[in-house]
Amino acid sequence: MKRIAVLTSGGDAPGMNATLRAVVRMGIHRGHRIFAFYNGFKGLVENESAEMYNRSVGDILTRGGTIIGTARYPEFKDPELIKRAARTFKLLEMDGLIVIGGDGSFRGALALEELGVPVVGLPGTIDNDCNGTDNAIGFDTAVETVLDCIKKLRDTASSHQRTIIIEVMGRHSGWIALKAGLAGGAEAILVPEMPFELEDLCHRLESGIARGKKHSLVVLAEGVMSAGELSVMMKDKMGFAANTVVLGYVQRGGSPTANDIILGSKLGARAVDEIAAGVSGVMVGEMKGELVTTPLQKVIDERKIIDPTLYHLAMDLVH
Amino acid sequence: MKRIAVLTSGGDAPGMNATLRAVVRMGIHRGHRIFAFYNGFKGLVENESAEMYNRSVGDILTRGGTIIGTARYPEFKDPELIKRAARTFKLLEMDGLIVIGGDGSFRGALALEELGVPVVGLPGTIDNDCNGTDNAIGFDTAVETVLDCIKKLRDTASSHQRTIIIEVMGRHSGWIALKAGLAGGAEAILVPEMPFELEDLCHRLESGIARGKKHSLVVLAEGVMSAGELSVMMKDKMGFAANTVVLGYVQRGGSPTANDIILGSKLGARAVDEIAAGVSGVMVGEMKGELVTTPLQKVIDERKIIDPTLYHLAMDLVH
Amino acid sequence: MKRIAVLTSGGDAPGMNATLRAVVRMGIHRGHRIFAFYNGFKGLVENESAEMYNRSVGDILTRGGTIIGTARYPEFKDPELIKRAARTFKLLEMDGLIVIGGDGSFRGALALEELGVPVVGLPGTIDNDCNGTDNAIGFDTAVETVLDCIKKLRDTASSHQRTIIIEVMGRHSGWIALKAGLAGGAEAILVPEMPFELEDLCHRLESGIARGKKHSLVVLAEGVMSAGELSVMMKDKMGFAANTVVLGYVQRGGSPTANDIILGSKLGARAVDEIAAGVSGVMVGEMKGELVTTPLQKVIDERKIIDPTLYHLAMDLVH
Amino acid sequence: MKRIAVLTSGGDAPGMNATLRAVVRMGIHRGHRIFAFYNGFKGLVENESAEMYNRSVGDILTRGGTIIGTARYPEFKDPELIKRAARTFKLLEMDGLIVIGGDGSFRGALALEELGVPVVGLPGTIDNDCNGTDNAIGFDTAVETVLDCIKKLRDTASSHQRTIIIEVMGRHSGWIALKAGLAGGAEAILVPEMPFELEDLCHRLESGIARGKKHSLVVLAEGVMSAGELSVMMKDKMGFAANTVVLGYVQRGGSPTANDIILGSKLGARAVDEIAAGVSGVMVGEMKGELVTTPLQKVIDERKIIDPTLYHLAMDLVH
Repeated sequence: MKRIAVLTSGGDAPGMNATLRAVVRMGIHRGHRIFAFYNGFKGLVENESAEMYNRSVGDILTRGGTIIGTARYPEFKDPELIKRAARTFKLLEMDGLIVIGGDGSFRGALALEELGVPVVGLPGTIDNDCNGTDNAIGFDTAVETVLDCIKKLRDTASSHQRTIIIEVMGRHSGWIALKAGLAGGAEAILVPEMPFELEDLCHRLESGIARGKKHSLVVLAEGVMSAGELSVMMKDKMGFAANTVVLGYVQRGGSPTANDIILGSKLGARAVDEIAAGVSGVMVGEMKGELVTTPLQKVIDERKIIDPTLYHLAMDLVH
Repeated sequence: MKRIAVLTSGGDAPGMNATLRAVVRMGIHRGHRIFAFYNGFKGLVENESAEMYNRSVGDILTRGGTIIGTARYPEFKDPELIKRAARTFKLLEMDGLIVIGGDGSFRGALALEELGVPVVGLPGTIDNDCNGTDNAIGFDTAVETVLDCIKKLRDTASSHQRTIIIEVMGRHSGWIALKAGLAGGAEAILVPEMPFELEDLCHRLESGIARGKKHSLVVLAEGVMSAGELSVMMKDKMGFAANTVVLGYVQRGGSPTANDIILGSKLGARAVDEIAAGVSGVMVGEMKGELVTTPLQKVIDERKIIDPTLYHLAMDLVH
Repeated sequence: MKRIAVLTSGGDAPGMNATLRAVVRMGIHRGHRIFAFYNGFKGLVENESAEMYNRSVGDILTRGGTIIGTARYPEFKDPELIKRAARTFKLLEMDGLIVIGGDGSFRGALALEELGVPVVGLPGTIDNDCNGTDNAIGFDTAVETVLDCIKKLRDTASSHQRTIIIEVMGRHSGWIALKAGLAGGAEAILVPEMPFELEDLCHRLESGIARGKKHSLVVLAEGVMSAGELSVMMKDKMGFAANTVVLGYVQRGGSPTANDIILGSKLGARAVDEIAAGVSGVMVGEMKGELVTTPLQKVIDERKIIDPTLYHLAMDLVH
Repeated sequence: MKRIAVLTSGGDAPGMNATLRAVVRMGIHRGHRIFAFYNGFKGLVENESAEMYNRSVGDILTRGGTIIGTARYPEFKDPELIKRAARTFKLLEMDGLIVIGGDGSFRGALALEELGVPVVGLPGTIDNDCNGTDNAIGFDTAVETVLDCIKKLRDTASSHQRTIIIEVMGRHSGWIALKAGLAGGAEAILVPEMPFELEDLCHRLESGIARGKKHSLVVLAEGVMSAGELSVMMKDKMGFAANTVVLGYVQRGGSPTANDIILGSKLGARAVDEIAAGVSGVMVGEMKGELVTTPLQKVIDERKIIDPTLYHLAMDLVH
């Protein structure tokens, strides 16, 4: 029997609740005791926690967000706070900590590990910019949400013969933009991993209009520039203003897709076994259909970028 | 047998296609011939039109937007253009014109009527600010779309214990904000019809937090101010920043609800009969369950405002 | 200050939770105390209840079903059980009982009233067969759910050039079939209120095929006959088999539409005021946009039937 | 330049249109000419075809079903019909045929190959029982549709404290039941790949009730038995009747998920290149993230079964 702690950290992502449920239920199934810290690392610093039982995670499987709360907590670089968090961990006689979050959260986890806290990370971030897993928990749902918005915007774009720029999340990575843009048949997709060429973009849109397209949709990852900036540049170049939509936090919410629920369930269950086996300092992910572990340091050091083949496929299919 | 023209004008709204289908099919069913002008009054000015048959409107019933196109066309105040439009109408020997749109579109319709064009208006605008009908076509769908976004934002607001301001459409009227805010359980709803009191808003949010609320959602009609402006004011007053989301054109799109399809079907069918009966200068709407006609001039002169009872109900139920 | 009891009874309907929330919160806002009985009249008979507070109904506004449970309880005709229920009511010193349900539930309520229990009914049933209200709580959502299924079935019907019969709820009333069928553009709609003519149905489908329709959808209210029976009859007559889909309980669930949430909120709030004013034996409904009360006996005696104009409109628009 | 034919066959699946679009547009992009045969092999036998252009597949990317029609065509075992089909193919001087469908369709494709028709198969079937690909086109969408229905049924099951059996598609394979059941938190999942033990099922449900569960959902693949049969067996054993829902064709329809659109786009594009390279007799699929080809004979001979680890995970997480 181990005493295993779990927390969710950083931006919330659909499927975090399903992951939590798997940690709790597989943990109890294996004979361990599971404790949740509230609101990310803050709960560890301030010792806000509760033991979790099977019923604690009842009825949360298909709900968005995270019932144990999460927080961006930039202060957690302060060695004093990290020490306090490690102290809480030891005071409660925990055997390991599962951190569900993204890059920033894994930095915090590694800092704790240096103070002797065994940690296992799980990738929960809609941006999908984590190395060591094909998909992060929440990414699949975010793509569906954006696709749904694209379909709605197409109605208006088409009725008004307009160009609409849709700014989506993705500071360092264009995954959401690429998958949703390809699935939504966007006339152009702009991602941080590819060079931005205004000339090229305008040519693409203008030739579409010349071929008789009634509307154009440009899906723009926020990491490239803002929709407002792009609109100004396009107006200067092409002479007409594009409308802009910034999807914002809408992308974060919603009931998770089956894929996110299942991914979270698999990873959550495996994280328990890794902790129990004494593993530490790794993230559990899924690559090419297999559960794998990757050192957290490696996850942080190398950012995952989009698949250029997919990008070129998207461009080749828009005519 | 009459020759009846139809066009959609102003911002597109879900259910415009269902309305068009009803005009076409009921028209043909009654023995008339139906012609569509493309892209609003612009199509009338430039004589871009086509005869519509039963099959022309097949498979459009549940689709958003409008297949005959629409346009904002502020130039249509120019008497020269209005004359050209009336000339097209007479040249094609039309007997009447059905205009699906909002206030601005009805102004254009009235200008045409002065030149001898028999016109009947149908209220198609998500803002629901048209007198003479309880609901405008598209409003019901827009409310559902906003409610869906509110539910998604609540996941994130709740996980992060944040305040989120959601700016929705409604320049002169708070209908979307009121209905979606009430249905979504928003902690505060700000509409142009009610005085804005920063003090009051902050008090409401703070007392919610004091009672243990994990999140606050503020639904803001764009006519009050922008979400960005409100966020700055709240920060000055309450000391913490609210996040903002501007839903924008997403509210315009999407497959219409059953209510919008049915409303559009009823109004479209009735408009044909009004034209055939020689009626002109009115809008057909539905009030208290009955189809009614209201002079277009009256529709334009008096703006429909929200039901204050509903507003107070919303406020009484949030605790 | 009054002590007001509330229960949900009969089949569950989306919006019951929103109604419950309004009863509880408006009740407390007005200075009353509110108590819920669990699982319908059964909870009253067996005295299973709990006081409700503002927080008891937090986070339920947009959830389907009813958190206080409901039950079909045919035994509640037994005078002994009714006496026991009335005894519980008096024992707990309640001042009034709000019953959210349909016809059967109102019969139970009237039986209790005869024993001196002040009762107010609220119409909660997806079938929408209750007199005294234009829409029952849950009906709007059920129509959207069925419309969504019709849209999915159309994909398959169209790809395979098939006829599909969709059996929907409505034992005595064709409201769901009519509104969803009209909104979904069904080629035929069969409801209990209209005579069934096989000849006519087959003619309608065959002439559609002759005009080049790739698919036919028949929406059938269960009160007419089962989809299986109809399929056999059609095969005998037309020589080809239609596929059948029975939507069943899927129609009952789901997050309520804004309309159902708002209707439930209005009616729940008003029921509290009626009870407090000493009113009894009535149902609160909404007709032509106004909240109205109707004697429960009248609600039970006269069944609400569909609007034939709407039926004929649907038929006129399918070509 | 090649002349490449494409058809969709068997049950329709969401994403078939996206696949078709990819075949057409990548084909034209590579300099080929693309022709569609209507309604599966029937169109090949009866020579019903049309050349496809970029605009022919505009606006279909996110639509369910297949615009070129499909048909079950059991007669296509008749050597005479196969010969006629091959004759059409040669008459039109086609260089290759892309068949989008499932097992049955690939048998037809192989029969054609024996007569000298170069064929490449693409897996389009919601059942996901095709070897040679991790996911078939349409499967991901079907799982989401079923998950959505499970969430709706849970509302009713929970409100009424009932057991509901949901029968889903899957004659030979339990993929839909497994993924949707796991994601929906079903209390029991019955699939053809696992032995059915009534004792075990009842024990599982009863112990859930004993632990305080308010409802039980049983997801049943049609290949095990019908929902009606299971309900009778459960009643005999446990003494209470479960409600049943048969989802049927609803599972086939709907706008495809981003995953299905992208999978279809990748496979469709690759199939063009395989045909152009002279490859024949294989199916293109995606396994572990890589596009791979598998001999059609092998696809047919070995059926893909569910992953038992996933099944056991689902069972371990339900408490």
